[in-house]
Amino acid sequence: MVHNGIEYADIQLIAESYDLMRSALGLSAEELASIFRDWNNGRLQSYLIEITSHVLAKRDDGRPLVDAIEDEAEQKGTGRWTSQSALDLGVPLTGITEAVFARVLSSQKARRVKASGVLAGPAASEKAPSGLVDDVQDALYASKIVAYAQGFEHLAAGSKEHGWNLDLGALATIWRGGCIIRAKFLDRIKEAYEESSDLPSLMLATFFKDALADAQPAWRRVVKTAVDQGIPIPAFASSLAYYDGYRRARGPANLIQGLRDYFGAHTYHRVDRDGAYHTRWAQDGNEVRTD
Amino acid sequence: MVHNGIEYADIQLIAESYDLMRSALGLSAEELASIFRDWNNGRLQSYLIEITSHVLAKRDDGRPLVDAIEDEAEQKGTGRWTSQSALDLGVPLTGITEAVFARVLSSQKARRVKASGVLAGPAASEKAPSGLVDDVQDALYASKIVAYAQGFEHLAAGSKEHGWNLDLGALATIWRGGCIIRAKFLDRIKEAYEESSDLPSLMLATFFKDALADAQPAWRRVVKTAVDQGIPIPAFASSLAYYDGYRRARGPANLIQGLRDYFGAHTYHRVDRDGAYHTRWAQDGNEVRTD
Repeated sequence: MVHNGIEYADIQLIAESYDLMRSALGLSAEELASIFRDWNNGRLQSYLIEITSHVLAKRDDGRPLVDAIEDEAEQKGTGRWTSQSALDLGVPLTGITEAVFARVLSSQKARRVKASGVLAGPAASEKAPSGLVDDVQDALYASKIVAYAQGFEHLAAGSKEHGWNLDLGALATIWRGGCIIRAKFLDRIKEAYEESSDLPSLMLATFFKDALADAQPAWRRVVKTAVDQGIPIPAFASSLAYYDGYRRARGPANLIQGLRDYFGAHTYHRVDRDGAYHTRWAQDGNEVRTD
Repeated sequence: MVHNGIEYADIQLIAESYDLMRSALGLSAEELASIFRDWNNGRLQSYLIEITSHVLAKRDDGRPLVDAIEDEAEQKGTGRWTSQSALDLGVPLTGITEAVFARVLSSQKARRVKASGVLAGPAASEKAPSGLVDDVQDALYASKIVAYAQGFEHLAAGSKEHGWNLDLGALATIWRGGCIIRAKFLDRIKEAYEESSDLPSLMLATFFKDALADAQPAWRRVVKTAVDQGIPIPAFASSLAYYDGYRRARGPANLIQGLRDYFGAHTYHRVDRDGAYHTRWAQDGNEVRTD
């Protein structure tokens, strides 16, 4: 199931890359086929990138077949179940879940057509920066690392919950054979778990943390370009937000806990001493320890 | 349940606003309390904005209490159930779901602390643009519209599925009394359903589409600033991606359907004629009608 969830994220990231280069640079399906063919010779080498180049290159009555295909994606349920399971297990599986929701939105074709004439886009379309194609390759790679890191955290959580004792490195090896997500990338995952079998996140493995550090300037440029031009990139943006959230020693959830204590007396913990506390906000304003 | 899900999104958007102004502008809790107090006199007027100013203003041994609260958010389940139900019903509930996942990530404190010393952030922190506070107010308002539009689409889908015949405008009215999400905003929702009871999305109501059009330049600037500075804004970014996806007459899901047909013979529809089609990619390359 998680394999299929990861496949949703992989495919969504490819779709966003395609959309960005098509919409911001005006590239044709043939030109895009050639770009994906090139990418398949590098670190993105994988079955899905390879067949993307085939699908984009396919002709139909003298024009690209892909331009004749309706833009309504279907799904058979495994992505949805993966997201629901992650919600149950408490794993922040944002990449796969955004991919599932993007398919749902794509299937609302009549609504989108209607809305396209009603909802405003950016005033003047800024020119796409030079180097966007290379930047998209970096953004795709970095977002893919995040999606796999989340998927493997999900597997680890499921393994712990159900006592499966999964060997995650071996799992990556198995997926190299015949699976839709087979890729050179899976060797890096196997190596990461050889380096440290109890990695809390694949992002922290030496290879992946360096790859993320290298890719992040381009990744940020790509998200900003899409935002400027009004091109939807839910999986790119969500993966970057997750990356930035994960590397935050102190986030803003202290305010969330303060609000929850205010309206619901849900209590909070303190950074400076143990225990659960509640402030009597509407009474005397004093803090009381509740545990 | 959906009320509570919307509450998760509302709170997450407030937390992201707080984090952005704190991290990008270095504002103190007192200064931020004053900003939220001002906002509560305008279109954001609501119980949650009001109590945010109280929580931020609260002192504890001579310093702001909020700075002493641990940044690990808890949850009681209603947000998670809302997301799971939306996945079942096929409603793209991205804002609430990102809020749920953000709470999960916040609870992984030990992992975040460890990762903060390992994962790289942006090289040089760009200076925050002037006007960021006003921009954040716009971004918060626009993202809130999206979160409510998704929540009400969820309610409409649930009502249809279960034959509840919900009066969505009346529901907004009910939520004005005593609920945690009570707000001036709910009057606008009531008016939107008076204008048109079968709105496919609240975003399309005159008042909200105009508000989104007005807010979007600032909304885009805020997302770009956060991306530049490495501040996580999953709900702002996801809401904007949804907005840009919803107003797209033609998205990139044609490629997704092409890929699904390639690896799984899942078939596709065409823009130029009825029927379901499959291309025999690995055989003779011909297209066949399958229905």
